[in-house]
Amino acid sequence: MNYKLTLCYDGTRYRGWQRQGNTENTIQARVEAALSGILGDKTEIAGSGRTDAGVHAREQVCSFRTSVSLDCGRVLALLRSELPEDIGAVSLEPADDRFHARLSVREKTYRYRILNSDRPEVFTRRYYCRFPQLLDIDAMREAASHLCGEHDFTSFCSALGKKRSPVRSLKSIRIVSDGDMLDIFLTADGFLYNMVRIITGTLLEVGTGQRNADSILQTLEEKNRSAAGFTAPAQGLMLWEVKY
Amino acid sequence: MNYKLTLCYDGTRYRGWQRQGNTENTIQARVEAALSGILGDKTEIAGSGRTDAGVHAREQVCSFRTSVSLDCGRVLALLRSELPEDIGAVSLEPADDRFHARLSVREKTYRYRILNSDRPEVFTRRYYCRFPQLLDIDAMREAASHLCGEHDFTSFCSALGKKRSPVRSLKSIRIVSDGDMLDIFLTADGFLYNMVRIITGTLLEVGTGQRNADSILQTLEEKNRSAAGFTAPAQGLMLWEVKY
Repeated sequence: MNYKLTLCYDGTRYRGWQRQGNTENTIQARVEAALSGILGDKTEIAGSGRTDAGVHAREQVCSFRTSVSLDCGRVLALLRSELPEDIGAVSLEPADDRFHARLSVREKTYRYRILNSDRPEVFTRRYYCRFPQLLDIDAMREAASHLCGEHDFTSFCSALGKKRSPVRSLKSIRIVSDGDMLDIFLTADGFLYNMVRIITGTLLEVGTGQRNADSILQTLEEKNRSAAGFTAPAQGLMLWEVKY
Repeated sequence: MNYKLTLCYDGTRYRGWQRQGNTENTIQARVEAALSGILGDKTEIAGSGRTDAGVHAREQVCSFRTSVSLDCGRVLALLRSELPEDIGAVSLEPADDRFHARLSVREKTYRYRILNSDRPEVFTRRYYCRFPQLLDIDAMREAASHLCGEHDFTSFCSALGKKRSPVRSLKSIRIVSDGDMLDIFLTADGFLYNMVRIITGTLLEVGTGQRNADSILQTLEEKNRSAAGFTAPAQGLMLWEVKY
């Protein structure tokens, strides 16, 4: 039987999503340990994608197979009591046999949150990146528009896999400003390694005037990481939504 | 010179507001240490009131006196860089010579936040108390209405000071329900020790049907802590606003 499990997590104290050898301190390892204990059978889960150390997820979807048919309500309740307080089990449901959390993804949305002031904001401090410099948000929006569409995003990737294509279809970048809080929502069919954080860093450099909005076209063409801006810190990033 | 300093804090890892002998791990001690270092002079602050271990403050006001005239903008910026990430310095301004953060209080508002479901909610997990039982919110509102006004709140106090009056004027209790999140806002001229948490626990017992709304009048009359409900946990409580 094939199942779809939806999670949320505060990534602050984890070394990212993906299980790594012996380290237990990843979200995947924690969820697999809880699930395996409940099912009485070693169970591996596939996530919709990896999130880096310190990155959060409002909605992370995973899938797993097990030989027994599950009472989803009961397993969900057990998961909720077994998982640490910074990992939440949102839902669990049977999935079509062909469903795979990573391979079946249609589009994913990330949110990058910036606090654009030096005002203290203690309650959500783990979920934004502070950047108090004055920002030209219109220029950032213009730069963002150049990134939308299907492009080779090599310049916006920290480490390319050898076999994977660097071409992605970036469907939208929505920049929402609410007082001194700035949210950048990016939706694509997939993202390269660190792509959201490098795009965010580059947009911030446009916002401060270090780059101009039109230079983004050139940055894409260079297909070179050093042509783009800095990698924005992990803590402002949240996997927002996964669509199938 | 007399100054008014407004703070916010996540109380999770502190032993409450009030400095206690040698323990550094209180909010007052942390702020006094930072301020004394910046001013180069041992400085004591008076808070609008104590918050217990684990209780948060969206707005806590304090006052302090110092012999020198301060550049408030500069001291505020230094405080922001000196204070730990879970204590924020919101504002600093000169105050009238008669102003005292505790003695001058006109009214204070606390918020108690309840998550009324077993849904995972990881990002704000430090700021609510989970209470998934079915609640009759209308009954809670009716019970709350009996508490408003000037009363002897002895039944809703954990430990009465010997000299202080147990009479308080509870101006309003507002219960705001948004999906499965329930916020109880209480405004009074002052609160007795644990008063908000005991009122909240008692209202929750009304909500589940363990008590009926009218019994609150009797509870007030008994002037005995054991007549009221349980003390709701600290983590759901937040000092919301202080008015002068």
